[in-house]
Amino acid sequence: MKRIAVIMAGGGGTRFWPLSRLATPKQLIKLTSDKVMINETIDHFAKTISREDTFIVTNCDQVARMDACVYPEVDRSHILSEPLARNTAPCILYSALVIEKLYGDALMAVLPADHHISDLKEYERILDLAFHTAETTDQLVTIGLWPTFPSTGYGYIRFSENPIGDDASEVYRLQRFVEKPDLLRAQEYVRSGRYLWNSGMFIWKASVILKAFETHMPEMYAAMRAISDDIRTPAEASAVARVYPELASESIDYAIMEKAKNVCVIPSEFGWNDVGSWDALTEVFPTDDDKNVIRADHLGIDTENCVVSGTKDGRLIATLGVKDLVIVDTPDALLVCHRSRAQDVKKLVEELKNRGRRDLV
Amino acid sequence: MKRIAVIMAGGGGTRFWPLSRLATPKQLIKLTSDKVMINETIDHFAKTISREDTFIVTNCDQVARMDACVYPEVDRSHILSEPLARNTAPCILYSALVIEKLYGDALMAVLPADHHISDLKEYERILDLAFHTAETTDQLVTIGLWPTFPSTGYGYIRFSENPIGDDASEVYRLQRFVEKPDLLRAQEYVRSGRYLWNSGMFIWKASVILKAFETHMPEMYAAMRAISDDIRTPAEASAVARVYPELASESIDYAIMEKAKNVCVIPSEFGWNDVGSWDALTEVFPTDDDKNVIRADHLGIDTENCVVSGTKDGRLIATLGVKDLVIVDTPDALLVCHRSRAQDVKKLVEELKNRGRRDLV
Repeated sequence: MKRIAVIMAGGGGTRFWPLSRLATPKQLIKLTSDKVMINETIDHFAKTISREDTFIVTNCDQVARMDACVYPEVDRSHILSEPLARNTAPCILYSALVIEKLYGDALMAVLPADHHISDLKEYERILDLAFHTAETTDQLVTIGLWPTFPSTGYGYIRFSENPIGDDASEVYRLQRFVEKPDLLRAQEYVRSGRYLWNSGMFIWKASVILKAFETHMPEMYAAMRAISDDIRTPAEASAVARVYPELASESIDYAIMEKAKNVCVIPSEFGWNDVGSWDALTEVFPTDDDKNVIRADHLGIDTENCVVSGTKDGRLIATLGVKDLVIVDTPDALLVCHRSRAQDVKKLVEELKNRGRRDLV
Repeated sequence: MKRIAVIMAGGGGTRFWPLSRLATPKQLIKLTSDKVMINETIDHFAKTISREDTFIVTNCDQVARMDACVYPEVDRSHILSEPLARNTAPCILYSALVIEKLYGDALMAVLPADHHISDLKEYERILDLAFHTAETTDQLVTIGLWPTFPSTGYGYIRFSENPIGDDASEVYRLQRFVEKPDLLRAQEYVRSGRYLWNSGMFIWKASVILKAFETHMPEMYAAMRAISDDIRTPAEASAVARVYPELASESIDYAIMEKAKNVCVIPSEFGWNDVGSWDALTEVFPTDDDKNVIRADHLGIDTENCVVSGTKDGRLIATLGVKDLVIVDTPDALLVCHRSRAQDVKKLVEELKNRGRRDLV
């Protein structure tokens, strides 16, 4: 069966300000390599899914920049434009309808646009297994990651004790989703061996997820089904623009995965990181002897455990007697932030908006 | 008697890197106001000494920039150029010889180029008193500052218990100079009431300081006296360039003040600060509610006790969850430094030299 990738690239990405901006969110910047994240994401599954079977769903404001980044690898007609953000459920429903129209049915892997993966061989193997499972069992398959530390920044998935099928199976019944826990609970989860990080990666047949929408989200399904004749015609954009504002803003986890019975998870380990804030760069990049991640023309004396990101033109960043800082230099704005507060960078962006500094957000 | 100001402006000023550079040291940057420090210094004594009686001694490399800053207030011929740095004694001897040649004799006030003074009225009064004392007593007069805290960054002056002359006199015999003390000793000094901060300001007759050089630094005196015929002639620059390398590199404190008997001090209080490092800006500028000194387009959340200096073009500096930092942004280099390490900024400059980054020093 045909294998399709649907990359969800709708994020605003204020947590990587000032490098990311409204017009160039996280998926459109170079963060974890010399490639823009969306291109890195496409490379991740290059051996499993062909370029011409890759779709990207993004916000209408980002379509032009997205196109500039992925051209010619992804055809412009494969960039699906959302007129406004409505979380992941509408986005997945829309792309499933596009796939149905184009191919009748196909396997689709729903993948985030801005995660880091270091063990690509294992990732390919897991993706292949997930496709195989979805094709042979009509399950809604999700990929869970073995937690390597008690993260309070990730959602968790609890899974059942015994694998589905024979003992050699790596596929388990999914029991429930858990929101980001506090540290104590996260520690319990890790110890228990029954919890995985929720990667936000899903693999299923288009027909199976459409059926699930019909069952569990009948209103949303009906609204989108009503315009399915327009999909892949010149009327698609205006039809979507008309319907989207009426759709509930729901995550796929809540809309479908928690309600459906045919949900399973594959516990995995492929060096995954969602790169959720500047702080996370130390988990993605090798650090120097003083535990710094330096991506700049930098001179440091007594500098420890810092993340330093510079401008392309190589302006020097000198640090002296500092630790646990995130320093991000861009042509028009500079950030100096304690590492423990990296999650709050979005508050700065909010404050800039409040002060009318639209030029900087 | 004619009153002359001699501003000593030879400093390299690496402690204010990256705002100060080799070519634009502390006295040539805007640090404590919207004026360049040398211009601020000239303004300090504007009511006591006239512009045309102002001299500046500086390094030959800085003459052109100095001229650009002080023109037309100070005539180019009043900027004395040292071919190389030899501490304060040769610089003062040279300027005394210039004054002798031009005016026969005159009162000269030797003043640092880069200090901050907030109470200008009191400063004028003290300067006037010092001139008067030097004129009527042939003393070498120095100005001492009442310490306001046990600074370990300043040199101290111990003075005798009873004033010279009547009880109303504010002039005291100077007993000895003390190098920068440790904290315990500094605390003792402040408690004792017999110690003052050494301001590096001196007032005397040219004839009296020349006599003191002849007595206490006979070699240096002889070498410079040998070229006194060339001074204020077209041969001056080459004569000075020939002699200067032979002169001992000595401070006026050690060369003369500690040896001479006719040395006195006027204890003073006029909001003086030598602005010795970025850290000192909090003593010069008013701080905000969170004890920050902000000289930039700045957005701070949970930012305390920081010094933030931005570029002229107003690049935004955003800070989040940080305290006790010095952040200095310039077009080609950025400094992030813990306040307690502000004295060590010169180490960064040294390291840049070692790495061949002459463009940045």
